[in-house]
Amino acid sequence: MTDKAEKGILYVVGTGPGAVEHLTAAAAAALSRAEVVVGYVTYLRQIATLITGKEQFGTGMRKEQERVKKAIELAVSGRMVALVSGGDAGIYGMAGLVLELLSPEDMEALELEIIPGVTAASAAASMVGAPLMHDFAVISLSDLLTDRALIEKRLNLAAEGDFVTILYNPKSRSRTSLIRRAAEIFLEQRSSDTPVAVVTNALRPESESTISTLGAFDPDSPKITMSSVVIIGNSSSYLKGPWFVTPRGYCLQEKEESPS
Amino acid sequence: MTDKAEKGILYVVGTGPGAVEHLTAAAAAALSRAEVVVGYVTYLRQIATLITGKEQFGTGMRKEQERVKKAIELAVSGRMVALVSGGDAGIYGMAGLVLELLSPEDMEALELEIIPGVTAASAAASMVGAPLMHDFAVISLSDLLTDRALIEKRLNLAAEGDFVTILYNPKSRSRTSLIRRAAEIFLEQRSSDTPVAVVTNALRPESESTISTLGAFDPDSPKITMSSVVIIGNSSSYLKGPWFVTPRGYCLQEKEESPS
Repeated sequence: MTDKAEKGILYVVGTGPGAVEHLTAAAAAALSRAEVVVGYVTYLRQIATLITGKEQFGTGMRKEQERVKKAIELAVSGRMVALVSGGDAGIYGMAGLVLELLSPEDMEALELEIIPGVTAASAAASMVGAPLMHDFAVISLSDLLTDRALIEKRLNLAAEGDFVTILYNPKSRSRTSLIRRAAEIFLEQRSSDTPVAVVTNALRPESESTISTLGAFDPDSPKITMSSVVIIGNSSSYLKGPWFVTPRGYCLQEKEESPS
Repeated sequence: MTDKAEKGILYVVGTGPGAVEHLTAAAAAALSRAEVVVGYVTYLRQIATLITGKEQFGTGMRKEQERVKKAIELAVSGRMVALVSGGDAGIYGMAGLVLELLSPEDMEALELEIIPGVTAASAAASMVGAPLMHDFAVISLSDLLTDRALIEKRLNLAAEGDFVTILYNPKSRSRTSLIRRAAEIFLEQRSSDTPVAVVTNALRPESESTISTLGAFDPDSPKITMSSVVIIGNSSSYLKGPWFVTPRGYCLQEKEESPS
């Protein structure tokens, strides 16, 4: 049996929206303990002040498998490794790819700890008000790993169920039609005055947000990028001054149960 | 015009899962700056080390409106106030009630800042693996403020759309039947070997998690409480050793797009 004290450690660390003040203390501590930090170069740059002087292995976009394999290899060899993931490592993040790629031998040879972070939906919501006070669906519009038909099916069902809906990866340079289709689907099932927020680079210094309505929403706006999320309200959502609000209950009563 | 420097501040602070190491630095800084901290007594106790010596206003469950009104009143009077909310203040949290209750005069009289935290879905997911790697729906089973028919409709649509589904507030002392109904609905549309996780008090010292399958899932288990979330996998989710994994794509390819 391997001596536990000699095992390498793989921390999969959600770094949150990108500004270091939105990292959790546990995430910062894991980065501090790590000997090697592995990640997408842009994310490494965002947390540069926390990993100064550490060994770093950064790669570009679309090199996710390479990063994960490298992080596993380093941890298996006995190192303390932090693999960083933007937002929450557990929501469309690196935690899944790590678990998909770990072999049974790897699992024996390292300790794995997944450290959650603030996901883009939470970050974006906090900038525009309180859109996520009721049931919601999170749908990625990236069709690289998912059939377009399934994405459209989910958009239809989320609209039908009056879920507040958050669209991740709404657009890329080469993929611009699904956000148009999403707007059409929601307009078929929800009032044209339903609030819609576009939040780009949420909670980063360069953040930008705009609130409009489904009727006025422009899916072709250059403000919608790969760094945006789009939040579509439910049938009770409304605008109050500069804020996008989804009421907690369909009629607010004195008998709240949840202790939030 | 009111002098901005004289305005009171209302921070609505998501304290994350409950253990202080999962608070963000921004949340801790807001608590540190606040003169008065308002919240549900259990949450104030969880963050006691961060608010020692501060004026506190704590109330019990179902006193949410009282807390929010007090926090607004204090901020309007020029104080620096932190209203705490478990998890993410923006997901079924206090941010919504604040915005619902703020009058136009209040909005003029205070500065409002919503600081997001790690929501229960992220915390729970991190304990059991990587269940949220694909589109998901978050549904609260609390029927105090939502029609039961709407909850069942959403459960059906989430099941039909093959969304990974996270159930918040799965059960209370007086409400035990909706989680049974949820299990029936998912069993009608998803294979009985679909992974299901029950995570209670996620990432707190007293946390507990169990992973089973839809077929073996016992909705009457006393392990499911108001402090649990239940995560039901999609049709691609699987168990790998002790981990619950939802693969990122329906077939993993080399052409990843998202830079997570």
